[in-house]
Amino acid sequence: MVKTVQRTVQTTGQGDVRDITGDVAAALSDSAMRDGVATVAVVGSTAALTTIEFEPGAVADFDRLLEHLAPRAGEYAHHERWGDDNGSSHVRAALIGAAVTLPFFGAQLALGTWQQLVLVECDTRPRTRDVVVQLVGE
Amino acid sequence: MVKTVQRTVQTTGQGDVRDITGDVAAALSDSAMRDGVATVAVVGSTAALTTIEFEPGAVADFDRLLEHLAPRAGEYAHHERWGDDNGSSHVRAALIGAAVTLPFFGAQLALGTWQQLVLVECDTRPRTRDVVVQLVGE
Amino acid sequence: MVKTVQRTVQTTGQGDVRDITGDVAAALSDSAMRDGVATVAVVGSTAALTTIEFEPGAVADFDRLLEHLAPRAGEYAHHERWGDDNGSSHVRAALIGAAVTLPFFGAQLALGTWQQLVLVECDTRPRTRDVVVQLVGE
Repeated sequence: MVKTVQRTVQTTGQGDVRDITGDVAAALSDSAMRDGVATVAVVGSTAALTTIEFEPGAVADFDRLLEHLAPRAGEYAHHERWGDDNGSSHVRAALIGAAVTLPFFGAQLALGTWQQLVLVECDTRPRTRDVVVQLVGE
Repeated sequence: MVKTVQRTVQTTGQGDVRDITGDVAAALSDSAMRDGVATVAVVGSTAALTTIEFEPGAVADFDRLLEHLAPRAGEYAHHERWGDDNGSSHVRAALIGAAVTLPFFGAQLALGTWQQLVLVECDTRPRTRDVVVQLVGE
Repeated sequence: MVKTVQRTVQTTGQGDVRDITGDVAAALSDSAMRDGVATVAVVGSTAALTTIEFEPGAVADFDRLLEHLAPRAGEYAHHERWGDDNGSSHVRAALIGAAVTLPFFGAQLALGTWQQLVLVECDTRPRTRDVVVQLVGE
C-alpha cells in the first residue's frame, strides 16, 4: 500500500528550521497504515531534511556549524556562473541531504521524544517549499 | 510485506562506533524476504547511522573529523539552555543522519565487502540505543 | 511490487561527480510503477550519493567543501594501517552517505528541475561503481 501526501512549508530563508514531524504524523494517521516506512523529501536543491532536537539552542548550534562549513558570504563558483548568491545553500543542502526515510510501526514513527523531523532552509531568501511524504506499508 | 525488528545496542559514549550489519542481515535472513529495502533507524537525537569500512583506522579518522567539525569541549547554545554538555552530540547527529535505507536483492544487502552499517554514538555518556530495522519487500 | 535495476558507472577518481538521475528515471519508466519509493545505493565505502544542482560551479563548490573537511593530502590512521592513500575518501563517503531514497508519484521522481541525483566519487583512483536502484511501489 502506497499513499502520497504533499504539503507546502513557508520559510523565511537561510537558517530557518521548521518542525514537520506533525505533518508526517498526520499523514500516517490519515492513512490508517500501521507498519512501514515514511519517505519524506523536500523538492529543490537548496533545502534539506534531517532530525534534531527541535529546541532553539540545538537549532542555533546546527546553523552555526553550517555557517562555519559553508559561509554565506564566502566565494562560490556557483555565483560566478549564474550571478546567484546562494552557493552556500547548494553545498549545505548537498551535505545534509534532501530526503529522510523513517520506519513506523504500531502507527508510530520511530522517533525519540526529543527528536523531530525538520526542514532546514538553506536558501538565502524566503521560499515556499514542496514537501512530499510517501508512505509505503500496510 | 513488512517486518519490524528491534534491537538494543549498548555504547560507551562519544566516539563509540558499532557495526550493526550483522543485526540487519540476521533480520533479513529471518524474514525470508529476497528483494526489497531495509530501513534502519536509531531512536534519539544524539546518535547517527552511516556506512563505513569498519576498521579502527577509518573509524578513528571519522571520529577526528567529527571532533574537528563540532568539538566536544566547544561552546553550544544547547548547553546554556539545558545545562547539558552534549551540544556537540546534537549537531554531529543532525549532520550525519539517524536513518539509512539500503536495498537488498537475492536476500543480500547492497553493501560492499569492506562496507559496514554502523551506529555512531555521539552522546557524551554511555547509552542503550534502540535500533529499528524495517524490512519492506517480498 | 519490487523491481531491482543494477547499473555500472565509470568514474575518474576523487572529485568526479556523475549525474545518475536519468538511470533512475529510466528504471522507473521501465517498471511501469506510478507511486512508491526509489532507493538508490552505491556499493562500496569510498563513494557517496546525494542531490545537488548539477552544474559545474555548484559541483566544484561541493568538492572544495569536501577537500576542506577531509584534505586528500591529510594524515589518516587508515593510511598507516593499510598503506592506502584514501583515508579522505572513507570519511567523506561516511559523512555524505552511500544511499538515497526518493519518493515518486505519477511516475515522476520528487526532484526539482535544478536538482539531480549524483554519484560523488571519493576514492583517489578511477573506479567502476555498482549502483543499485530498488523500486518499491505500485
